[in-house]
Amino acid sequence: MSTTFTPSLTHDNRIQHAGLRQKVMSAEAAAALIPAGAVLGMSGFTGSGYPKALPQALAQRIEAERAAGRAFDVGVWTGASTAPELDGALAPAMRQRLPYQSDPAVRRQINAGAINYIDMHLSHVAPMAQAGFLGRMDVAVIEVAGILADGRLVPTTSLGNNQAWLDMADKVILEVNAWQSVALEGMHDVYRVALPPAREPIPLTAPGQSIGTMYMECDPDKIIAIIETDATDRNSPFKAPDADSQRIAAHIIDFLQNEVKHGRLPANLLPLQSGVGNIANAVLAGLNESHFEGLTAYTEVLQDGMLRMIESGKLTFASATALSLSPEATEFFNKNIEKFRGRVLLRPQDVSNHPEVIRRLGVLAMNAMIEADIYGNINSTHVMGSAMMNGIGGSGDFARNAYISFFMSPSVAKGGAISCIVPMVSHTDHTEHDVQVLVTEQGLADLRGLAPVQRAKLIIEKCAHPDYRDALRDYLKDAQKVANGQHTPHIMGESLAWHRRFLQSGSMK
Amino acid sequence: MSTTFTPSLTHDNRIQHAGLRQKVMSAEAAAALIPAGAVLGMSGFTGSGYPKALPQALAQRIEAERAAGRAFDVGVWTGASTAPELDGALAPAMRQRLPYQSDPAVRRQINAGAINYIDMHLSHVAPMAQAGFLGRMDVAVIEVAGILADGRLVPTTSLGNNQAWLDMADKVILEVNAWQSVALEGMHDVYRVALPPAREPIPLTAPGQSIGTMYMECDPDKIIAIIETDATDRNSPFKAPDADSQRIAAHIIDFLQNEVKHGRLPANLLPLQSGVGNIANAVLAGLNESHFEGLTAYTEVLQDGMLRMIESGKLTFASATALSLSPEATEFFNKNIEKFRGRVLLRPQDVSNHPEVIRRLGVLAMNAMIEADIYGNINSTHVMGSAMMNGIGGSGDFARNAYISFFMSPSVAKGGAISCIVPMVSHTDHTEHDVQVLVTEQGLADLRGLAPVQRAKLIIEKCAHPDYRDALRDYLKDAQKVANGQHTPHIMGESLAWHRRFLQSGSMK
Repeated sequence: MSTTFTPSLTHDNRIQHAGLRQKVMSAEAAAALIPAGAVLGMSGFTGSGYPKALPQALAQRIEAERAAGRAFDVGVWTGASTAPELDGALAPAMRQRLPYQSDPAVRRQINAGAINYIDMHLSHVAPMAQAGFLGRMDVAVIEVAGILADGRLVPTTSLGNNQAWLDMADKVILEVNAWQSVALEGMHDVYRVALPPAREPIPLTAPGQSIGTMYMECDPDKIIAIIETDATDRNSPFKAPDADSQRIAAHIIDFLQNEVKHGRLPANLLPLQSGVGNIANAVLAGLNESHFEGLTAYTEVLQDGMLRMIESGKLTFASATALSLSPEATEFFNKNIEKFRGRVLLRPQDVSNHPEVIRRLGVLAMNAMIEADIYGNINSTHVMGSAMMNGIGGSGDFARNAYISFFMSPSVAKGGAISCIVPMVSHTDHTEHDVQVLVTEQGLADLRGLAPVQRAKLIIEKCAHPDYRDALRDYLKDAQKVANGQHTPHIMGESLAWHRRFLQSGSMK
Repeated sequence: MSTTFTPSLTHDNRIQHAGLRQKVMSAEAAAALIPAGAVLGMSGFTGSGYPKALPQALAQRIEAERAAGRAFDVGVWTGASTAPELDGALAPAMRQRLPYQSDPAVRRQINAGAINYIDMHLSHVAPMAQAGFLGRMDVAVIEVAGILADGRLVPTTSLGNNQAWLDMADKVILEVNAWQSVALEGMHDVYRVALPPAREPIPLTAPGQSIGTMYMECDPDKIIAIIETDATDRNSPFKAPDADSQRIAAHIIDFLQNEVKHGRLPANLLPLQSGVGNIANAVLAGLNESHFEGLTAYTEVLQDGMLRMIESGKLTFASATALSLSPEATEFFNKNIEKFRGRVLLRPQDVSNHPEVIRRLGVLAMNAMIEADIYGNINSTHVMGSAMMNGIGGSGDFARNAYISFFMSPSVAKGGAISCIVPMVSHTDHTEHDVQVLVTEQGLADLRGLAPVQRAKLIIEKCAHPDYRDALRDYLKDAQKVANGQHTPHIMGESLAWHRRFLQSGSMK
């Protein structure tokens, strides 16, 4: 990507296709075109690039329809989580939601049994939808930065499943958002993965490589409405890393240095994947202050920590499917966007998260967890076994295919009432087979090449909070006495007693 | 692959490298070269292609050393399971074993806590070993059909991790087995997957494509001993499918026909993956009698059912890492081997099981399970949560990356005392995210696009045995009353009560 690239789009001329200019209408008029019961494929990945006007107008219409006694619900498929203007607004109207969410209203409805929530690996979503496994899509609702004269679309701050939804939906509504920088043009790499038997090798061998086109495509005849908006993305504010997160980061950086020293990692490591949140940002801040140089990222979202690493020169390139920047970092990014051209590329999520590419590049995957058990199984999604928190997202795509897969969490939650290291996880998202390193503020357990009981001893001593170590040692010792086998000693019916105790008394102690 | 290929090897001239002929010695002499505590990388995948003499000689030596009061144990790394002459003989001497086994003596030692057994995805083994994550390998012990004049090695009936072990071991012992057909020459495709950052796309786009060489390579200077053997592979006899297996097969074939009818699968399907055993053979027998034509297989092992399909012309090509044929089928194969040239290719297991290739080809993955829970999580490895049965093998590689992932089991075991559909699995190997279709003799549950409670209702009605349906319905209803969330309603502390009951009373009822 040359830094002298000249975008076609200008701030004052975002809809350059004459025919499509005729389709501009209000959000309310566009919402009126959506049939009751529709499955909607929407843009949006974290609080980036989601449609800002149509979902709210549709929510109002649905409220009115229902007030008039007419049934009206929708299925909502996105890239991943979005923001209150989409998930929050439509939560009461959702029949079905996939594949990831983090909205309080949606979560409440899921856990009330009112929304059928399908929690999928992000790399599975587009191919399974395109194969017809999830049913038909009626309308795609996609935010764009603008439309070129020939109808090609300039994506905004996330790419997610946008091209897949444009390809498979019967009808399309576009939101052209004037808030989004026209300089985003050229910072995307749209590559379509065909369905088998026509699938070819994805020719990506480095995070910075372009293999597709800068634009999304859509048959103009399918576009039934265009809405003009001027509304900000809405991501979470950046919080300075707390002491626990800094300790976790320090353990990981020590580990990486040791791997380099022993020749198991190159001096500039391998491409990084890192989730959002406090711990992830702490790890990135730690790497930014480390002696590592020439790092790259092949990840799902570009968060504040990575932006700073690009700025400092530590990170030479970041590939992701979405920006997920705090309001301050967003402002900085938009003001200095030309600095990031050639250093940032947004890809469809079935490429950013593709097992083929992740395994080929040898990604170092660092993901948060809700709890781990003593044998190294991970729960990323469920609170006390039954209630959905957010979803698995891309953690499975990265953990399974990583060069080294790290899972991280503080050792306790709720002021110590919950131990994040438990005898048995209450829900399994990542099995013992997919976890190489477990980290809490207490320490780091390197599980590579260990059998379950060896792992258990190490996890208890290195990762569990001291307040829970004795109880975990006792569980293991008791299980070794009574279990029907010593490979993974467990006491059936007691293994989840810690969760039961918490639900009954408010504490695992 | 031309059918006029002329092998270099002849039955009477299997060691054509002059220098290496000097290294022929007895198994006992070779066993004396192995140091106490050694990590051994052995060939072998199912009862195929494992060394037949050295492990037994080594076991005898270890017995003598121990009788003399000298400590002697070994780590044993293979392709997958082997046979009594390897796993059975060395079980008492094993300190560590990876990555898959199915031997009664080894299983007993694992479940007694005497062997550290590391149960890994088969696709992870070679790359993680080569990256140095599992420690050093002292000696590779590899069966070959012969050695060419230039030192290249002709593999036998399994390829597994052989090339990786030859590359990484300090020293190598070869067994040249005169029982193995010299006509196996040319039926292998050895391709090395580099470590990152040097990994390239694997250029495989069809099951029948050759991308590597027909031979294994090894620095002759590393070869410290050659043992001549004449001993059969030892795989399980073929059992005719029972009625339950035939019903499972019929459900799957109905499903596949329906997918073709609705345009979600091509008329000749997509490459098949199928495990070993009764159910797998029944599905293959069913496909052999179906109207499907031009099928292919991209799988781990070639079993009797697939051989028959090649013979009948239903299956045009099978790619695997090992033959796993009954004694009768082995005899047939060896007698008619030229018929199978150009229709069968054995690959290293990090290619046969590579996520990149499996996802690209869109494999239809059919794997057996021990139990499933009502939400679609799968236990493939543990009996009642603690005791290891065999291991995860390649099921995770295939299930996660399949076009459609099927898991199959009879609905009950032990004469009805065990329900294979339970409230919660006692160990999770494949999460709800990786399972599209669940099948028992009772019926087939198509879980695609369903939320957990929808899946539970379908699995109970379609797959559970009628004797257990009421109890499962009651569990779900009770959980929906008391759970802390309605996404995956569970009762912590009760969810594993069925397993506890079985351990106490001998029945889940």
